Amino acid sequence: MTFYEKIAKAWAKNNSLVCVGLDPDFNKLPECVKGEKYPLFAFNKAIIDATKDQVCAYKPQAAYYAGQDRDADLQMTMDYLAETAPEVPVILDVKRGDIGSTAEMYAKEAFERYHADAVTVNPYMGFDTLKPFLDHADKGVIILCRTSNPNSGDLQNLVSDGYMLYEHVAMLVRDRWNYNKNAALVIGATYPEELKKIRTLCPELPFLVPGVGAQGGDVQKVIANGATADKTGLIINSSRGIIYASKGEDFAEKAAAAAKELKDLINSYR
Amino acid sequence: MTFYEKIAKAWAKNNSLVCVGLDPDFNKLPECVKGEKYPLFAFNKAIIDATKDQVCAYKPQAAYYAGQDRDADLQMTMDYLAETAPEVPVILDVKRGDIGSTAEMYAKEAFERYHADAVTVNPYMGFDTLKPFLDHADKGVIILCRTSNPNSGDLQNLVSDGYMLYEHVAMLVRDRWNYNKNAALVIGATYPEELKKIRTLCPELPFLVPGVGAQGGDVQKVIANGATADKTGLIINSSRGIIYASKGEDFAEKAAAAAKELKDLINSYR
Repeated sequence: MTFYEKIAKAWAKNNSLVCVGLDPDFNKLPECVKGEKYPLFAFNKAIIDATKDQVCAYKPQAAYYAGQDRDADLQMTMDYLAETAPEVPVILDVKRGDIGSTAEMYAKEAFERYHADAVTVNPYMGFDTLKPFLDHADKGVIILCRTSNPNSGDLQNLVSDGYMLYEHVAMLVRDRWNYNKNAALVIGATYPEELKKIRTLCPELPFLVPGVGAQGGDVQKVIANGATADKTGLIINSSRGIIYASKGEDFAEKAAAAAKELKDLINSYR
Repeated sequence: MTFYEKIAKAWAKNNSLVCVGLDPDFNKLPECVKGEKYPLFAFNKAIIDATKDQVCAYKPQAAYYAGQDRDADLQMTMDYLAETAPEVPVILDVKRGDIGSTAEMYAKEAFERYHADAVTVNPYMGFDTLKPFLDHADKGVIILCRTSNPNSGDLQNLVSDGYMLYEHVAMLVRDRWNYNKNAALVIGATYPEELKKIRTLCPELPFLVPGVGAQGGDVQKVIANGATADKTGLIINSSRGIIYASKGEDFAEKAAAAAKELKDLINSYR
């Protein structure tokens, strides 16, 4: 199954455009999991069990595992997702970008070591650095376009030939880089006007949209400006707003409620 | 000691601008190390022992460890470098770039977990994604500018306000991002004219220059176009040309000879 097929099935099955970001910071975890041997995994497992019928995707952010010397927790999380929620696509958020021979190693990391369904990548270095990912026709390759952070315009808003840099990225994906029909774009919920422009350029491409919740993106505008004609096309990520909904023993239950609330809010605008 | 001070001392001590890229691909290793429990580390250790008086820096590429599920080999390599060659700066090549809270985790990975002296980062997402690295005033932050790969111009050559994207990056570093005097730029040896333009924009900034050796960059042009007024300013990386100089039991000895040969070639143009 291709990534486009897998995400379309997941949108339909759970009637949800919600992606849960699995970005566990040890210091922010509920006390009841901190004593576990693999605390990030124990936390993720409970969140996954509680939310898997509310979501269209999961997105573990690799930095949280690498930065806390917890690679094993990421491996266990990826294995657990493949076993318990095989129908839910898993996006490994790594934002890699490097020369060809190195990018091949990163593709092995994402698709062999962690058997992700999709990976995020950075386009700054150009096509040959994305090709080792794009060549995996059955995997999704989600390319940074207009990111959700405050200073994303520093480079992304530079205008060349009448188009901003992020529009060039969208057009390169549309015209040249999506030869395997497996590319998607990252566009922050915090920039709804940009989201609209990119949807016009790429009417059918899936967009990964971070930035609702803690970062303040407006769900109504995201749907109005970013959904495809059939009211899908969006993988709307929330991390902190869902996984830290409670710091008590009811954290998983509260995470499920927060995921359902976001799903319902999104669906009310579809 | 700051990164600028540490690299300046290393340039002087070994009279060398050579950086050795520690990018071990298990399949390309000499047979004599393949049976080791930590084969990438065993390989690196022998290379480090043989080359540490010929170099100004080492640059382990994280993808080779992550892609081959060999994080322990990277940790052992970083620990060994700190112990045996504390005067040689170590650049962890990771090309990270992510929103602030995530970038903080990546800064922990580079500077706490692996205690690197410097890290490579990707500027596509803008200032707030670089700040968590730049705030470490004692660490080097080496920002992608004009990369060595064939399609690096896809985005980097787009012209905005009369300057190409990579020139904007150089100017942002010069004018706004180098507030802690710890930034440097990545510029590929394969683009000597661009190197010249960037040296004009940033007369004193250290440049990490990959792309000599296997990628075909011309050493004479790199020195002529990239050196600072005092004939330093360059960290010229070679990976495959040095570490795979021989596939026999003499691999470390041959790597040292290759490093010395590159050092001498570089110095002949200084």
